[in-house]
Amino acid sequence: MTVNLPLPQKNDLKPVKGFEMGIAQAGIKKANRKDLLVMTLAPGSQVAGVFTLNRFCAAPVQVCREHLAQDGRNGEIRALVVNTGNANAGTGETGMKHALETCAALAKDLNLNPEQVLPFSTGVILEPLPIEKIVSALPAAVANLGEDHWFDAAEAIMTTDTQPKAASVVVQTSAGPVTITGICKGAGMIHPNMATMLGFIASDVGFAPGLLTSLTREVADQSFNAITIDGDTSTNDSFIIMATGQSSVQIASVTDPNYGVVKDALLGLARKLAQMIVRDGEGATKFMTIEVIGGKTQEECRLVAKAVSHSPLVKTAFFASDPNLGRILAAIGYAGIDDLDVNRVQMWLGDVWVAKDGGRNPSYQEADGQRVMKESEITVKIDLGRGNATQTMWTCDLSHDYVSINADYRS
Amino acid sequence: MTVNLPLPQKNDLKPVKGFEMGIAQAGIKKANRKDLLVMTLAPGSQVAGVFTLNRFCAAPVQVCREHLAQDGRNGEIRALVVNTGNANAGTGETGMKHALETCAALAKDLNLNPEQVLPFSTGVILEPLPIEKIVSALPAAVANLGEDHWFDAAEAIMTTDTQPKAASVVVQTSAGPVTITGICKGAGMIHPNMATMLGFIASDVGFAPGLLTSLTREVADQSFNAITIDGDTSTNDSFIIMATGQSSVQIASVTDPNYGVVKDALLGLARKLAQMIVRDGEGATKFMTIEVIGGKTQEECRLVAKAVSHSPLVKTAFFASDPNLGRILAAIGYAGIDDLDVNRVQMWLGDVWVAKDGGRNPSYQEADGQRVMKESEITVKIDLGRGNATQTMWTCDLSHDYVSINADYRS
Repeated sequence: MTVNLPLPQKNDLKPVKGFEMGIAQAGIKKANRKDLLVMTLAPGSQVAGVFTLNRFCAAPVQVCREHLAQDGRNGEIRALVVNTGNANAGTGETGMKHALETCAALAKDLNLNPEQVLPFSTGVILEPLPIEKIVSALPAAVANLGEDHWFDAAEAIMTTDTQPKAASVVVQTSAGPVTITGICKGAGMIHPNMATMLGFIASDVGFAPGLLTSLTREVADQSFNAITIDGDTSTNDSFIIMATGQSSVQIASVTDPNYGVVKDALLGLARKLAQMIVRDGEGATKFMTIEVIGGKTQEECRLVAKAVSHSPLVKTAFFASDPNLGRILAAIGYAGIDDLDVNRVQMWLGDVWVAKDGGRNPSYQEADGQRVMKESEITVKIDLGRGNATQTMWTCDLSHDYVSINADYRS
Repeated sequence: MTVNLPLPQKNDLKPVKGFEMGIAQAGIKKANRKDLLVMTLAPGSQVAGVFTLNRFCAAPVQVCREHLAQDGRNGEIRALVVNTGNANAGTGETGMKHALETCAALAKDLNLNPEQVLPFSTGVILEPLPIEKIVSALPAAVANLGEDHWFDAAEAIMTTDTQPKAASVVVQTSAGPVTITGICKGAGMIHPNMATMLGFIASDVGFAPGLLTSLTREVADQSFNAITIDGDTSTNDSFIIMATGQSSVQIASVTDPNYGVVKDALLGLARKLAQMIVRDGEGATKFMTIEVIGGKTQEECRLVAKAVSHSPLVKTAFFASDPNLGRILAAIGYAGIDDLDVNRVQMWLGDVWVAKDGGRNPSYQEADGQRVMKESEITVKIDLGRGNATQTMWTCDLSHDYVSINADYRS
């Protein structure tokens, strides 16, 4: 079950000039299933990424970091390869060897250096990557390369996702239109059988060297780093923005008036994709927006939004459509703001002012809270009353199905 | 359902000289139910406490802190009063007034100063305390005072607990025997309908001024602060140790050879009580011990134990008896040790060595992991391979019943 998540329409997913995708069936975990995706970038493209902070990060994440850090010494990044069915995490030296072999094999097929390839894996942890299956299927994926394969690409990276996730936008700038299209996958933050977050966005905009790296970090913080399903940080989380520079829009610096236009469009698309993951969250029946305002710093707002979003008691209350205000206030209280004056805290459920000055709003009627809780999309707004910083996060409820999905044996 | 938690036997709960309990039915939330407990201490007793760090802490917690901080200026602590059915949290100035009124009413009945009384409340948050019901029932509780009411006291503080929790021990010291008896309650860390942690331990040992305060903190850290059910820190958590000094054992300083004997006995009893809360955890079907060794500091061991204990993915895997090692390794990886070398990490499930040098132990057979996972008590041992510090935590699994219990509407 998903929460207000319509299937993406193929025609809505705009091709990005200079960016191609090819899909193949490598039979990594199951036969007759798209499980291998190759993506290629035209010469002169730029690529930036944000990766999991998990110390048990997967081999491909380590290789991605190294290849991105080489900063063009062996040629710019020109290709990406994603396999599902196996995360290549917790696999030690052999795992590193397999990730590098994947890059080398694709580089050979595409006439590149191995360092120009970024590898991604998602699926079960602690199992060796079936490298020979991947290498064998790469030529088929390369032969399939094309600009209009976004929908198939979104399908090819699915694991426990119940449907493909993709979105597209064309934004007008003073220098002409920019096309941005992206795909992502994920349903639990980590799920060895299988679901870790991957996100790829491509655009035909051009950026001066260096600009894309900081922009990708900013976008990630306000999109994929602002969602939680179960709070588990995966071993494989990766988010990539690619800019082919094939449109008329070339951005030289952050002071370029089009920088803000493109950044907002990228952020909007990244948020939409990130929210798709929440809408398809394991067992999700509700989509919740936790909006924290009035903080001294954005970081303390994030702490509060995270505590509320992550509390199993808050999440089960939403599943039950129970306006259980005490649980939300308690989560605010333990979020980690040591000098929080609770008497300044206000809270709204949708349009209903439920907590006033740290206690129950005298005019609050439970029937009003109940009405809001029955909706499938609910916003909790919390005013900390101590500054002007804000942070919003998105999450889903905790249902019986979450337990069922995650208690199912892996095989 | 509980995990290996036999009902305490009345005869096993030894009276503590100088300590009495009286129970009454105040009808706070439901009629015909023990919901009010008064405890009294002989003159010369000492009391120390550890309380929730939640900023939305309840009014009684604030009053307890103030009365304990007065350090005998208005007379030593001589009485405690506990009500269930209402947490008196998120109740603002009125809540403070009600907590103080409760103290004043009991002080009058017992001929004490109000500052000599500690108040405790547990139950629903954000509802006004029915102060008149409590004040009316106090005389009945006082009339019921007696040394052998431990079992009834344990029953009187229950909320969503499925059974009373109490334990007792007599320890021999070189100066004679010391009796220690305690009760506690809790099933979810916080649950407005209702369940927050309360723990009370009384002993007839005598302590020199000041000794009990640091000892209580130490005991709490290795008992009630080392358990987690759902990770939510309540607004009302309180843990109290009382020493009446009515036995022949008088401890003058930490260098007294009997200090260690009594401390170990207090810690043993506190751990037993704390583990009872986990064994009666909401929806629990398994009792898990997470033992982290080989850390640089105890704090980093605690971070790892907490991440593993708190992960919904780990907890659902235990519910499913699934030896899903990747989930445990992933939790270790995101616990917050930035310079963790995962290649030094070892892990055991019970007696089975499952992860070796950060990856799957080559000799590990899934059937062995499966065998351990089917037991009702499971120890996960994690060696970080970077020092000599250790920390153990206790937790339970995450089952369908947890969701059912917490998704039930409050009324």
